[in-house]
Amino acid sequence: MNNCPFCHLTIAHKAFAELDGNIAVYNISPILEGHSLIIPVKHYESLFEMTEDEISSFFSFARKVTAFLCEIYEADAWDWSLQEGEEAGQSVKHLHLHIIPRKPSDLKEGEEWYQKLRQQQFEAPDNNGRHRLSETDYSKISGHLRNSWKKQ
Amino acid sequence: MNNCPFCHLTIAHKAFAELDGNIAVYNISPILEGHSLIIPVKHYESLFEMTEDEISSFFSFARKVTAFLCEIYEADAWDWSLQEGEEAGQSVKHLHLHIIPRKPSDLKEGEEWYQKLRQQQFEAPDNNGRHRLSETDYSKISGHLRNSWKKQ
Repeated sequence: MNNCPFCHLTIAHKAFAELDGNIAVYNISPILEGHSLIIPVKHYESLFEMTEDEISSFFSFARKVTAFLCEIYEADAWDWSLQEGEEAGQSVKHLHLHIIPRKPSDLKEGEEWYQKLRQQQFEAPDNNGRHRLSETDYSKISGHLRNSWKKQ
Repeated sequence: MNNCPFCHLTIAHKAFAELDGNIAVYNISPILEGHSLIIPVKHYESLFEMTEDEISSFFSFARKVTAFLCEIYEADAWDWSLQEGEEAGQSVKHLHLHIIPRKPSDLKEGEEWYQKLRQQQFEAPDNNGRHRLSETDYSKISGHLRNSWKKQ
């Protein structure tokens, strides 16, 4: 767990929302504006480690965060992606759900968000067109989201 | 609703599992072996139309079906994809979650399942490498899954 990048995220540090044992975090290398992750605070590697109540809380929170992000980023479409296991593209072995707000023509012809998603997600350097935000920009975005979430 | 291809699916016709108002259906143009859909029986276009209880039942059932499919198809990795709104790739306007069991090297280098997913999902003719199963093959697969699900 010490090496898990997602175990070090808290509402006081990086996460912008928290509810019932889950946090929402902006992706440091977003595929598209608003790209965020829902992560259980407990180090679950698999969805199958969760209780039924935890499943409910996780997806209920994910829906709330999706509505919030779509409002903030003025999107009315979105993708959810959950990848479990290395062959499915799971790069960080701590369960997480991707939320990606979508807008008309937000990806160029031939661009594929899933391909981009397969790049190392959180600790990755820039590669394959995924720009890693600077710490300053990342803090600004997370701070803005954290404040907006609180004001709801 | 009359034109919705997902409103005509029942456990007696095509669906292989049903629980708490949701059904599981094998995709007639599977991206990979085992590719199935979780669909609420009610014609919900959006996840936001569901009650909290319905959210719980939907994802709890999805998890059960994922475990089942991974056992049947001998996969230990899987992708979930939920696309809401046209810009996100939602082709049938009846809420559905894709479950795709994954195995080592199941897609060729450069192949992307999300790109394939964007093709018309259920009523589509063959295109872009997605083979539409014949009615006979489809019935065989669904029948096999339905029987295996019952035996659990």
